[in-house]
Amino acid sequence: MLRIGHRPVRDHRVTTHVGLVARAFGADGIILEEHVEKSVIETLLETAKRWGGPFEVRVTDSPRREVFTWKKGGGVIVHLTMYGINIQSSNIVERIRRRENPLLIVVGGKKVPRWMYQAADYNVAIGNQPHSEIAALAVFLDRLFGGEELIREYRNAAIKVIPSPRDKIVRRLDSEKRRGGPSNTG
Amino acid sequence: MLRIGHRPVRDHRVTTHVGLVARAFGADGIILEEHVEKSVIETLLETAKRWGGPFEVRVTDSPRREVFTWKKGGGVIVHLTMYGINIQSSNIVERIRRRENPLLIVVGGKKVPRWMYQAADYNVAIGNQPHSEIAALAVFLDRLFGGEELIREYRNAAIKVIPSPRDKIVRRLDSEKRRGGPSNTG
Repeated sequence: MLRIGHRPVRDHRVTTHVGLVARAFGADGIILEEHVEKSVIETLLETAKRWGGPFEVRVTDSPRREVFTWKKGGGVIVHLTMYGINIQSSNIVERIRRRENPLLIVVGGKKVPRWMYQAADYNVAIGNQPHSEIAALAVFLDRLFGGEELIREYRNAAIKVIPSPRDKIVRRLDSEKRRGGPSNTG
Repeated sequence: MLRIGHRPVRDHRVTTHVGLVARAFGADGIILEEHVEKSVIETLLETAKRWGGPFEVRVTDSPRREVFTWKKGGGVIVHLTMYGINIQSSNIVERIRRRENPLLIVVGGKKVPRWMYQAADYNVAIGNQPHSEIAALAVFLDRLFGGEELIREYRNAAIKVIPSPRDKIVRRLDSEKRRGGPSNTG
């Protein structure tokens, strides 16, 4: 996925949350604008190292070029925006799922440039109310993957949570398991 | 819903997103800690005024008292945490939906106190990976309301989006419509 319109300092934590959500909800990686703070990238890489992957993080000096290169390569662009087609009152997720081309999901903040709306194959609204690009990404991926992303096993994780009704249980995984054989993460 | 563990300055935008998501995904209101920045509250109230409601915002000097008062009143507490029961591999949403008592959903950041895990009727994980309280709240509400929250009409809105495949269309609602007769928001 691609995060555009990052404003330094102000968006620091929001962009970190966008990246964590991308990983936890099944995206393969995230492309960030090159002026993003180093600490954002470090947090995402550190999370993928401790909790497992794969999850790629890279930066770009031109989101626009990323989008058009993706399109030229036969990929599909989904732009999440409150102005788009409402995910709940349309079959847009089914239509997107039916296309088997690689998907680039784009989320911005308030100031997404005009060309993005034109370049997108689908402008999708997670409801048409103002809320959060973090929430939009999570709900879109949750519906795209049908919830299966939430029980996926991550490869090469150093730790994992053991779900519990009332406690915080974190298990350290031995190195044998970390090198791990086959995994069902697809 | 209740947002706990707000750290001034640092969490400013994250708490704003939590509040916007609460409103846009169908919660009746949000309770914030009293040390939250005024601008967070102003943004939430201003959003509810322009885009419609109802949505209540209030502060508390004791999240703990809110939780125990809610329980005493017969309400149910759902705490969203990555350590809880995985929403995808359990029937926890159905069990919560079956209880007709008023629901208080609690989200925190990293430092949720021990008593919260004990006080909650349900500690629910939106996956057991680290991500975002904003995403957790959105996906939980999306599943609780079965997606219907995303097509709800808001009362007394001054403006609304007309969904569009490629444009940004915002319609100003006339005052007649704003005073609005019956609404289907329930």
